[in-house]
Amino acid sequence: MQEEKIVGILGGMGPQATLDLMAKVIRATPAQSEKDHLRMLVDCNPKVPDRVAAILAGGPDSAPALVEMAMGLVGQGADLLAIACNTAHHFHAAIQAAVPVPVLDMIALTARRVAELDPPVRTVGLLATEGTIEIKLYHRHFEARGIEVITPRELEMRSFMSIVYGVKTGHDGPVARAGMAALAQSLMDRGAEAVIAGCTEVPLVISAGPTMPMIDPTQVLAESIVQSVLGRARAMSPAL
Amino acid sequence: MQEEKIVGILGGMGPQATLDLMAKVIRATPAQSEKDHLRMLVDCNPKVPDRVAAILAGGPDSAPALVEMAMGLVGQGADLLAIACNTAHHFHAAIQAAVPVPVLDMIALTARRVAELDPPVRTVGLLATEGTIEIKLYHRHFEARGIEVITPRELEMRSFMSIVYGVKTGHDGPVARAGMAALAQSLMDRGAEAVIAGCTEVPLVISAGPTMPMIDPTQVLAESIVQSVLGRARAMSPAL
Repeated sequence: MQEEKIVGILGGMGPQATLDLMAKVIRATPAQSEKDHLRMLVDCNPKVPDRVAAILAGGPDSAPALVEMAMGLVGQGADLLAIACNTAHHFHAAIQAAVPVPVLDMIALTARRVAELDPPVRTVGLLATEGTIEIKLYHRHFEARGIEVITPRELEMRSFMSIVYGVKTGHDGPVARAGMAALAQSLMDRGAEAVIAGCTEVPLVISAGPTMPMIDPTQVLAESIVQSVLGRARAMSPAL
Repeated sequence: MQEEKIVGILGGMGPQATLDLMAKVIRATPAQSEKDHLRMLVDCNPKVPDRVAAILAGGPDSAPALVEMAMGLVGQGADLLAIACNTAHHFHAAIQAAVPVPVLDMIALTARRVAELDPPVRTVGLLATEGTIEIKLYHRHFEARGIEVITPRELEMRSFMSIVYGVKTGHDGPVARAGMAALAQSLMDRGAEAVIAGCTEVPLVISAGPTMPMIDPTQVLAESIVQSVLGRARAMSPAL
């Protein structure tokens, strides 16, 4: 019998978002007993230089730390890798070039999931960091599929970044939740048919609801991880 | 400046308990920004042979997998190790013998925490697996400090093990919670002055309350991890 594949996770960006991905992998795994769960090697490294600062403000490059983490995980036995941070996907190609195992692409997987929705979605609202938006991580995938992307207005972006950096240090209470819900609603009011929770801190403070169609890339990634290892997964996201 | 120590966690026993330890480490860390959090290398390995079966039923030995995990984590850079499973501490000496870095002992740390309580506790109730009880993991530490240990009765132990194995596969709802609360209360009724949540699945379904003095070894371990790295920690456990 072939040994089950081992999952490697580049995490810590922020740490709570890594726990969220791990929890979603656990829930997406059909398990009758403990040993049915996947083996995950996790490098929860909050010391990775800030991705947004690296992209926008000439801050220290995040790539060397991410590449080192990826190589460490593969050296320890990981057969596939996942990155628990949307903005860090800017460095996806550099990471993939450094390791001989597949590195899942949460952005591409999410765009594909949205493109498969029925009825089709023509406009998505994107809650993502300034870095993710600036380099058009999601835009490129969505626009290639004819899906329009709208993003928060300038003042809203400041509020968004403030909430995200707060969540990274545990400020995920009612104020953060109300603020994030208002930002999502504003995108809906402006014509978004669905909101992309395009930063791993977003699903920590907001989730899909009857009046809030939301796609959670962390959930999409979790299901893809389980699918990659077992060939099947428990789809838990209501999607839309 | 000396680089901050990297924490290695032997986990996956079960997977949700590993998330619980990681979450408690994150909460116990004084952090103003993401990078203030600790780097944790986590081997969440649910394939480790069942510890209780290894101890009681002649099942496959758990030690080789645990030793391999410990060596892998140290190879990847871990400066200290922790084990997110009470019963697996049966193999603590074997793990410690295999690596050149300290392996924290959750059992010893918990016994010390209880012995420091004021007013002193003379009798504790122990919610732990049959394996942990059989090899007297906690008993030895408590009895050396003159603290009596009482454990669930035979039928209660069957109920306990059934809840624990259920929690490992996600059955942590109201039934598990009510069952675990009843087991803890029974120990209190029989004279326990505090209950030790001596299996990492226990704090997933029950917590300390005004009428339930409880010591959570996962919380004690988390604080000790942060203390070992930073020299200080945010103590979040009300203890008693």
